[in-house]
Amino acid sequence: MSFFLDNIDAMIPYVPGAQPEPGRRVVKLNQNENPYPPSPRALAALESFNGASLRLYPDPMAPKFTAVASEVLGVPPEQIIVGDGSDDLIIMLARAAAGPGRAIAYGEPTFPYYFTQAQVQGAPVAAIPCDADFTLPLEALAEADAALTFVASPNSPTGAAATTDQLDWLAGKLSGLLAIDEAYADFAAENALPLVDRHDNVVVLRTLSKGYSLAALRLGFAVAGKAIRQGLLKTKAIYNVGPIPAAVGAAAMADQSYHDECVAAIIAERKRLATALIKRRFFVYPSHGNFLLAAVPGGDAPRMVETLKAGGILVRYFNSPLLQDKLRISIGTADDTDALLAAIDAML
Amino acid sequence: MSFFLDNIDAMIPYVPGAQPEPGRRVVKLNQNENPYPPSPRALAALESFNGASLRLYPDPMAPKFTAVASEVLGVPPEQIIVGDGSDDLIIMLARAAAGPGRAIAYGEPTFPYYFTQAQVQGAPVAAIPCDADFTLPLEALAEADAALTFVASPNSPTGAAATTDQLDWLAGKLSGLLAIDEAYADFAAENALPLVDRHDNVVVLRTLSKGYSLAALRLGFAVAGKAIRQGLLKTKAIYNVGPIPAAVGAAAMADQSYHDECVAAIIAERKRLATALIKRRFFVYPSHGNFLLAAVPGGDAPRMVETLKAGGILVRYFNSPLLQDKLRISIGTADDTDALLAAIDAML
Repeated sequence: MSFFLDNIDAMIPYVPGAQPEPGRRVVKLNQNENPYPPSPRALAALESFNGASLRLYPDPMAPKFTAVASEVLGVPPEQIIVGDGSDDLIIMLARAAAGPGRAIAYGEPTFPYYFTQAQVQGAPVAAIPCDADFTLPLEALAEADAALTFVASPNSPTGAAATTDQLDWLAGKLSGLLAIDEAYADFAAENALPLVDRHDNVVVLRTLSKGYSLAALRLGFAVAGKAIRQGLLKTKAIYNVGPIPAAVGAAAMADQSYHDECVAAIIAERKRLATALIKRRFFVYPSHGNFLLAAVPGGDAPRMVETLKAGGILVRYFNSPLLQDKLRISIGTADDTDALLAAIDAML
Repeated sequence: MSFFLDNIDAMIPYVPGAQPEPGRRVVKLNQNENPYPPSPRALAALESFNGASLRLYPDPMAPKFTAVASEVLGVPPEQIIVGDGSDDLIIMLARAAAGPGRAIAYGEPTFPYYFTQAQVQGAPVAAIPCDADFTLPLEALAEADAALTFVASPNSPTGAAATTDQLDWLAGKLSGLLAIDEAYADFAAENALPLVDRHDNVVVLRTLSKGYSLAALRLGFAVAGKAIRQGLLKTKAIYNVGPIPAAVGAAAMADQSYHDECVAAIIAERKRLATALIKRRFFVYPSHGNFLLAAVPGGDAPRMVETLKAGGILVRYFNSPLLQDKLRISIGTADDTDALLAAIDAML
């Protein structure tokens, strides 16, 4: 007997973006991190956190955080369920809804973690290829009608966003859950929160990792109605979010003017980088996230990734059929963009 | 079709210990929290944490923390896998090893979360009753030979500890995994870490919640050899532990003299409380944890819990056949003990 389930023995582990060697200064554009520091109010909340209180177990539902998120987003606090990053919420959903005979569906390419979780759950996978322009395969997803359908919108690594109308249509067609992963919604024009009240099978996932510059805080949340909440609470680790992320996250979300300022700067820089890459004969896909997917002129993306890396610039490469000639480049500061463009110019 | 798996729809959610109403001052002896504050070095690590660094994803393996834990415990750093509390490690183990046809076994009564996770995984449960004195049913556990056997040692809520020799014997008999949950090992004379090198099926779980006064930090870890590590890494959420818990936890573990001082005070207080309760005709079980299990004179434990609660003292009650006449009382400060004894004296 193996120590582990057959699907665990067989599975391919998820490989996260590479970390730079400790102490090495790099231009880090490979993990869609926000180039700006967290809100000063978030930093102040961390500094003033009462460490002595850590001896006591926290409230499992992080009520001070959910109160703030509720007010900022205009959703009732009881529709918010916190997670140790949005990964945790993806896991909670997969554990509650997916398994043998209960598939996970998604359009491909997308965040590979949905596939990872399907493997862990031993769930069938309906990975439906997007069109060449990375449009979401809406009808095929509706037809697959999986127990759990993931739509990342905006999607990584493509940058494409589904419209709320499209997601509304899809939710109505599905008998299973529709999880709309809005990790990048901060940088998009639309979001799917209004669908939560319209469809009892819709859950929206959010994270503070990107829009709030808090990737290392490990704080995400789901917005969902009563039916989904009941299932998620059964798979939620009791104390999955401690009071430090809750307090820092609450302060970050309360500071919407700082958030909006950072987001505006990133969107402006995204436009500048896209224009500059197009001028250099990259094919740049329209992006609603804090990154660009760009096909490299000539198509030798691996060589470009390696050359950039040697020069201290990290971008992300995915070795899969639709992506092998492309790079995913996180939007950094103006200096980051300049360094990247200079390195590309030296190469072309 | 339900949104969720049948086993999820059918399951009974885990109910954590009650939180006091916000703002109410209570003597909180219901969640085995440490009555002393975290180490001053841990508090200093929190204060000096560089909040700006939170914008970047952390190293998934928390290497600075594992280096300290490795040195303190004398185990190689590559045998340490971090978790968002030890709950997270219990979940990782259950997801990797348990499911339909692959049972979870444990002696009963014990930490109810093993049962919760069996339900989430849809795994058969071998819940083997302990003797009246709460001795671990070693032979029956060996005979059950489950895919995943949990032994909490010291065990909550009983306080009983298995000897390393007993666990050594059990590990040798089992073909599946033996997870030794040492949440309370800080307060015990022995621990099972030496078994990790002797048996490739042994994993030891630790937490900083109890011995290090960091329940709200959410940091635990597993110690296991290569075979188990490979499986756990597949079910570990990539960034399950952020750099704040890693830094604070490392500082706490580095301060062994403070840890030992707190533990000694708790053990001394445990002895004093046991003596005082015995004098008041409670039956007190020998405890190797930071709590006592005590049968109430006359047997009406629910009444005592309610009367204590009305007086602002919280203790834990489990409504199950073996425990219904007993209380689990966490060891607090000398003042906490005095308050508890005065309230009991007023009642008897």
